[in-house]
Amino acid sequence: MAARTLSTLDAYKEFVDSYDNFLFDCDGVIWEGDHVIGKAGDTLQYLRKLGKRIFFVTNNATRSRASNKGKFDKMGIDCDVDEIFTSAYASAAYLKTVLHFPADKKVYVIGEKGIEDELDAVGIKHSGGTDPDDNVFIDLMDFSSITADPEVGCVLCGLDMHINYKKIAKGFRYLRENEGCIFMATNLDSTFPTHGTVYPGGGATTAPLACCFGKDPLVVGKPEAPMLESIVQTNPATDPSHQLDKKRTVMVGDRLDTDIKFGVQGGIDTLMVLTGVNTRQDFEKAGAVAVPTYVVDGLGDLAVLASQ
Amino acid sequence: MAARTLSTLDAYKEFVDSYDNFLFDCDGVIWEGDHVIGKAGDTLQYLRKLGKRIFFVTNNATRSRASNKGKFDKMGIDCDVDEIFTSAYASAAYLKTVLHFPADKKVYVIGEKGIEDELDAVGIKHSGGTDPDDNVFIDLMDFSSITADPEVGCVLCGLDMHINYKKIAKGFRYLRENEGCIFMATNLDSTFPTHGTVYPGGGATTAPLACCFGKDPLVVGKPEAPMLESIVQTNPATDPSHQLDKKRTVMVGDRLDTDIKFGVQGGIDTLMVLTGVNTRQDFEKAGAVAVPTYVVDGLGDLAVLASQ
Repeated sequence: MAARTLSTLDAYKEFVDSYDNFLFDCDGVIWEGDHVIGKAGDTLQYLRKLGKRIFFVTNNATRSRASNKGKFDKMGIDCDVDEIFTSAYASAAYLKTVLHFPADKKVYVIGEKGIEDELDAVGIKHSGGTDPDDNVFIDLMDFSSITADPEVGCVLCGLDMHINYKKIAKGFRYLRENEGCIFMATNLDSTFPTHGTVYPGGGATTAPLACCFGKDPLVVGKPEAPMLESIVQTNPATDPSHQLDKKRTVMVGDRLDTDIKFGVQGGIDTLMVLTGVNTRQDFEKAGAVAVPTYVVDGLGDLAVLASQ
Repeated sequence: MAARTLSTLDAYKEFVDSYDNFLFDCDGVIWEGDHVIGKAGDTLQYLRKLGKRIFFVTNNATRSRASNKGKFDKMGIDCDVDEIFTSAYASAAYLKTVLHFPADKKVYVIGEKGIEDELDAVGIKHSGGTDPDDNVFIDLMDFSSITADPEVGCVLCGLDMHINYKKIAKGFRYLRENEGCIFMATNLDSTFPTHGTVYPGGGATTAPLACCFGKDPLVVGKPEAPMLESIVQTNPATDPSHQLDKKRTVMVGDRLDTDIKFGVQGGIDTLMVLTGVNTRQDFEKAGAVAVPTYVVDGLGDLAVLASQ
C-alpha cells in the first residue's frame, strides 16, 4: 500500500488522534548532530500536552539511558530516562522480562559500558565488557587465558571499540560449551554515521563470533522484533495499566531499513520524516526495503497543531 | 563421479605414474600435532626419488615459509622452503605475479607477522600488521587516529590475534576512499583446530571488515583458485621450465571443504586420505561438498611401492 502524505491540518490532527503511543528515532528525526531539526521539539511538547506516551528508540548501545538523557537535556528537549529505549536497554529488558534469564547465570559482554550499565540496572550479572582482563591482546597461539565458565548463559555483542581476539575466543568457547547459551546482539548495523562519515558498527564487531560459531545471533535492536517487544512488555511488568496497544502505537523515523522496517515487522504503523537518511524515492521505487504508513516532510510540521 | 579407492600395488603405481606434481595438505595428511602419520614420510621420500615435484599447501598465514620449514625439520621430513605454499605466501605471490601490484603502493595488513614476512620477500611495502601503533585500543568514539592513506592499494586480512577496532576502521577507510583498493583475505577458515579444540580462524578476523564494507574479499587460500594459480604461476616467473601442467598435478588432503574442493575448483585431480578430518561417508553422501578423484586409507600406504 502506498504511503499517505500528511500535509494539511486535518491530516495532522487525524494522525495524532489515531495513536496514544509515539516511538521516535532521534538522529535525522529530532536532531542532526547537535541541533534540533525544525520545530521537532515543539511537536514533542504538543504530544505531551495531549497526554500521549512518548518513547525514544535508538540502536546506540554504547551509552546508558542516563547518559543518553544528557543529550536530550543539552538539546532542551523534555525527556524522562524511562522513555529512552536503547538497544542495550532493550537487550537487558528482553533477557529479564521476556527470556526470564536465570539469576544464577551471567552474560558475557562483547561491547561497551552502556550494555553493562543496563544489565546492572535489571540485576543481571555480567563479565567481559570493560573488564581490563578482557581488554588485552593475547600472544600468538597462547590460549591459556581462554578458560571455561559454565556460569555464562548468554553472550551479548554490540558495538565494541575494544573488540579483541580474547573476547571473541571466550565468547566462542561459552557458546560451544555451555548448553543453552544464548547468542544475542544489540543490533547488526554494519556502520554508523558520525563526524560526517561512517565507521564500523555493531554488526562489524558481532561478525567474528557469528563467523566462527556459524550461527546468527538473536538481534534485539531495530529492525528486529525484540526491541518492540521489550517496549511493549517492559511496562506491564512494572505498571500493568500502561501496557501498550500496538494498534494505538506508531513508529516515527527517517530510515527505511531500520525504523520503518522495525514498525512494519513489528505490526505497528509508521510515519516517515524526510529530514534524515532516506528520501521519498527510496520507498516509492520497486523493491523498497519497507514502505511507511504515512510520510511528512518534517516532524516539526505537526507543531502547527499547537497553535490551533 | 564416484571416488576410486586405491588399495592395491597396481593402483598405487598407476596413481603415482599419472602425476608429476603432488600438492600436500599437512595437518591430518602428513602429521597430526607433532607426530608423523604412519609412513607418510616414506611416501614423500619415494616420490622425491622418482623426481616428482612436491608442494606443501597450508592456509596457515601466521608464520613465514621459513618458520614453517622448522616444523618439517623437527618432524624429520625433507622439505625445501620453496616447496611450502602458505596462504600468506600465496597472497604475496598473487599480488606480485598475477595482479602486478604497483611498486608505489602498499598493503595494509590485518594479520600476523607471517603475512608481513612474505610481502617483504616479494618487495611489497606494507603497513598495519604488527606495527605497535596499530595494535592498540582507541577510546570510545575517538577517531582521531583513523587517518587517510592514499598509498594503500590493498587491505589484506588473515588470522590476527591482535585484531582491533583501529585496524578495522583504518582498513574500512582505505577500502572506501582509495580508488581500486583491493580487499583480499588469505583464507576464510571460520575456525582452526589446535590443542584438541577449535579457535576463531582467519574468516572470523576478516568478518568485521567484510561486514562494514559490505563486500566479500578476494580469497587466496584453499579452497579458492588464487592459491593454485600462485603455485602454477610463480614458477614460470623464476624458472619457465618448471611451469606446472595441471593435468599432471594432484592435490592430496583430508578435508573436503578445503583440500578436495580446492582441487576440484582448480581443475586438478585429488586424492583424499582418511587420516584426518573427513570420512568416506562425508563424500559418499548426497550433497557432499566435494568428491575426490581417488581415496586411500593413508598417505603412508603408498610407501609400499618403495620396497618393490
